[in-house]
Amino acid sequence: MSSERLIYLPLGGAGEVGMNAYVYGYGKPGKERLILVDLGLTFPDMDNSPGVDLILPDISWLEARRNQLDGIFITHAHEDHVGAVAHYYDRLGAPIHARAFTANIARGKMAEFGHPETAVRIASPWPETVTAGPFTVGFVPISHSIPESSGLVIDTPDGRIVHTGDFKIDLTPGVGEPFDHDLWASIGAAGVKVLACDSTNVFSHHEGRSESSVAQPITDLVADRPGMVVATTFASNVARVKTLAEAGARAGRSVCLMGRAMRRMIEAAVESGVLTDFPRTVTPEEAANMPRENVMLIVTGSQGERRAASAQLANGKYNGITMKEGDTFLFSSKTIPGNERGVIRIINQFSELGVDVIEGDDRYHVSGHANWPDLDTIHKLLKPQMLIPMHGEHRHLREHVKLARANRIEGILAVNGMMIDLSGNAPKVAEYVETGRTYLDGSVKYGALDGVVRDRIRMALNGHVMINVILDEEDEPLGEPWVETMGLAGTGRSNAPLVDVLEEDLAQFMGRAGNKVLGDDDKLEEGLRRVARQSAQNEIGKRPEVTVVISRLAD
Amino acid sequence: MSSERLIYLPLGGAGEVGMNAYVYGYGKPGKERLILVDLGLTFPDMDNSPGVDLILPDISWLEARRNQLDGIFITHAHEDHVGAVAHYYDRLGAPIHARAFTANIARGKMAEFGHPETAVRIASPWPETVTAGPFTVGFVPISHSIPESSGLVIDTPDGRIVHTGDFKIDLTPGVGEPFDHDLWASIGAAGVKVLACDSTNVFSHHEGRSESSVAQPITDLVADRPGMVVATTFASNVARVKTLAEAGARAGRSVCLMGRAMRRMIEAAVESGVLTDFPRTVTPEEAANMPRENVMLIVTGSQGERRAASAQLANGKYNGITMKEGDTFLFSSKTIPGNERGVIRIINQFSELGVDVIEGDDRYHVSGHANWPDLDTIHKLLKPQMLIPMHGEHRHLREHVKLARANRIEGILAVNGMMIDLSGNAPKVAEYVETGRTYLDGSVKYGALDGVVRDRIRMALNGHVMINVILDEEDEPLGEPWVETMGLAGTGRSNAPLVDVLEEDLAQFMGRAGNKVLGDDDKLEEGLRRVARQSAQNEIGKRPEVTVVISRLAD
Repeated sequence: MSSERLIYLPLGGAGEVGMNAYVYGYGKPGKERLILVDLGLTFPDMDNSPGVDLILPDISWLEARRNQLDGIFITHAHEDHVGAVAHYYDRLGAPIHARAFTANIARGKMAEFGHPETAVRIASPWPETVTAGPFTVGFVPISHSIPESSGLVIDTPDGRIVHTGDFKIDLTPGVGEPFDHDLWASIGAAGVKVLACDSTNVFSHHEGRSESSVAQPITDLVADRPGMVVATTFASNVARVKTLAEAGARAGRSVCLMGRAMRRMIEAAVESGVLTDFPRTVTPEEAANMPRENVMLIVTGSQGERRAASAQLANGKYNGITMKEGDTFLFSSKTIPGNERGVIRIINQFSELGVDVIEGDDRYHVSGHANWPDLDTIHKLLKPQMLIPMHGEHRHLREHVKLARANRIEGILAVNGMMIDLSGNAPKVAEYVETGRTYLDGSVKYGALDGVVRDRIRMALNGHVMINVILDEEDEPLGEPWVETMGLAGTGRSNAPLVDVLEEDLAQFMGRAGNKVLGDDDKLEEGLRRVARQSAQNEIGKRPEVTVVISRLAD
Repeated sequence: MSSERLIYLPLGGAGEVGMNAYVYGYGKPGKERLILVDLGLTFPDMDNSPGVDLILPDISWLEARRNQLDGIFITHAHEDHVGAVAHYYDRLGAPIHARAFTANIARGKMAEFGHPETAVRIASPWPETVTAGPFTVGFVPISHSIPESSGLVIDTPDGRIVHTGDFKIDLTPGVGEPFDHDLWASIGAAGVKVLACDSTNVFSHHEGRSESSVAQPITDLVADRPGMVVATTFASNVARVKTLAEAGARAGRSVCLMGRAMRRMIEAAVESGVLTDFPRTVTPEEAANMPRENVMLIVTGSQGERRAASAQLANGKYNGITMKEGDTFLFSSKTIPGNERGVIRIINQFSELGVDVIEGDDRYHVSGHANWPDLDTIHKLLKPQMLIPMHGEHRHLREHVKLARANRIEGILAVNGMMIDLSGNAPKVAEYVETGRTYLDGSVKYGALDGVVRDRIRMALNGHVMINVILDEEDEPLGEPWVETMGLAGTGRSNAPLVDVLEEDLAQFMGRAGNKVLGDDDKLEEGLRRVARQSAQNEIGKRPEVTVVISRLAD
């Protein structure tokens, strides 16, 4: 088959929430010209990725085809959409396109890595477009929980693709552009072949609520509370931060932003012109010296992150400020599944300080994603020929295909690595591409399946025994085996130190072992490991990880 | 002060959900006769207690006073109330009192440990009582999510204590005794000095719902679904298991129980007479050979536990049964905070199999704990002089004290280790007792703060470097340092193997080191550790844990 085809290939975000990276291509099979939509990251957790700093999509497939890549398009400035641009700039090189606010954030990341900021180009919104190979890409304003989110209209020789990015239908988003039904209807009227659509909230069946609906409840709450009021939200939700700040100002409080991400986002919003009338703020030092009932802090750390401002305040003093009895802490946010423990920990710490915490109250938070009814609306507005649910776990994508079916749209469930051929009248799987997760760990990147983190998890679950033996030139043991343990109980069943018990059992093994074993590193190591694990099992009921070091003195 | 006093001392459960263990005492200070109410456990997690099997309360204080302990009273058979009885039988020895169903479960645990089952005595419900030293204890039926839950009426020379245990106000609990307002009112009418009261649901302000309210929705759901229906719930919720089984039977399905805990609970309920008319069940083998639309499985693993039946089914085949497109999996349960990741994992696995999952739907689950309105009712019914909120995190206890204040009851926030003197007209802190968590790890118990688990967490976060050096009789290095790593990237900045880089840097250090260092194990170890950490930091941007083994060849 040598005719052109139109393809879609998710490298991240399809089958998970986070780490968005979607490839579109057009051309002869294998020689398609490519664009990448979003290049985000996701966050590690102790269960699956202890010690890892960040999780990035594995872009090997794209890197091997970087000469086919005509551009990278970033829909909005959330970390799971823009977070990996600087990490991968060296390996992809293509120009990065984004609207002003998003570009400001992306350029900040590039600068941190010493990459040229000019690699990030500022795109004007629709009807202006950017040409990248066979693709003409327009950034269409769409409402979400961060300024200047865009749905992309991607016109190709084989028809129009609409890639929503993350979105909701919000007619009064506070900061930024409201959802424009007429504009989207006109985009749909021109004929949409493929709708690639946000799926994260498909299980929410109630009507979506506008960002502006939280303003009055927050204003009333802040006006009502004695003592200091501290609120946390996602730093990137500039509209929310503004609402909180205005509620503080209206209650006669001085507003103070705390946390690097919070200040960075507001700075980017002001610099890029999306935020023009933010209340005057004071520094933490100034806030610390004011009567507490005159202060409103807006802080990072809505997910209970250990090093963020909220966790620091819960721990005690932060930036000279201590919360106490009579103060209020508001979570103007939702706890992302998996972060509950961290959030509950700081709520209890605040409780110990006597601080009233308001959390999980719908009046003070709305989601930034389209619920089922909003998704239904966008299907009907754009009337696509095909639907590709994107950004969501498997369950979300599957449910979104059901909605498509209900709307008589051809849907396909494509997870990361499934290349979909969009050329015909129905989407079909063209190929399976190897994808996965890349861990950034300290300054090193490696594959999630490389075994490094598996070993860490094993040490965490099983503890670690290190065995040291020395043999002379005749393969005779010099002294007895030496054992160190880490992460294991000091004593077990016999009440003798565990290392003593292990050393004795290992010494007995060495004593019994013949030259065939003593002279063979592999056999000796295997024997020592087996004895150590069995001995630990008897003594403490656990089979630890074992590292054996055999030193042979040279002739 | 030599007169008698009445004391309360939580050793577990106060400041946390789980691991309940509450001491009451009466007598001269330091010589009080004691009883223990509940002796439960809690479950580990990867964030805080990787590799640990179970978490038990630290009972050192009580063990040191075991000759003052006149009895252990178990309110109900949930693991966080009864789970530690067998683990601690040797160390406490006192007779254990419980009603028949709870005793059946407790005796099973005793048998597993080879302890005498007769140590667990079956108590008849109120108005019968058990005398234990100066205490007269009655088991008053109270509704909860397990059969035969009891509130304890503890009469003391200094007045009546009511210890609710876990409870809700349920007039139609399905299996077991309904909440009896008149009975509780009569108990209150005799005068209650202290109410120690379940706090876990104090933040829920809506009216509690009866267990029986889920029967019709579940029946309708099961009748409606094509394919196999599999439901999970807490195995101990015998009423729910019965409701699920009856829904299956009514839909003409054969019912099969899967998972050891599920079968054990139903067996105990039948043996103890609380369950009399459970639908006939079939074996997994029989179920596997039936048309799938004729089968209803009821399985363990509502919290996504990796080894439970639900996770096994999500993974593929279990007991010869494979779920597939058109089947339904119902969570008739709530996800306990912290377990979200595990639950979401299996939902997505089911989604990949094409199974429709119903989760988080209030129609199919009700809580077993008293909400704010129920707590208010019990306050008003018993009219205690003092309230001690128990079973709950700090935030729950604090909120419950607020409710007490609203009801003009003297409340006190007592967390684990705070001994409260209840003798006067108001509760007051008498003493702070050292308490904490004991980890069961394999076959060994040790303190949560002993450092074992801290080392495991450090290895998981930082990786582990092992350094081996050998010196001769003159303190001269024999060969070069040998390095092994575990849980660290194989190569870093220089593209050479990490172990080679470390070995080279360590060899240089040894070369530079004078006799004062080479001859001193502590100095040499400290130097090697420092160099290894710095070298790793340069190479991979991480500072690993380091274990150093120095071998000195004897003269």
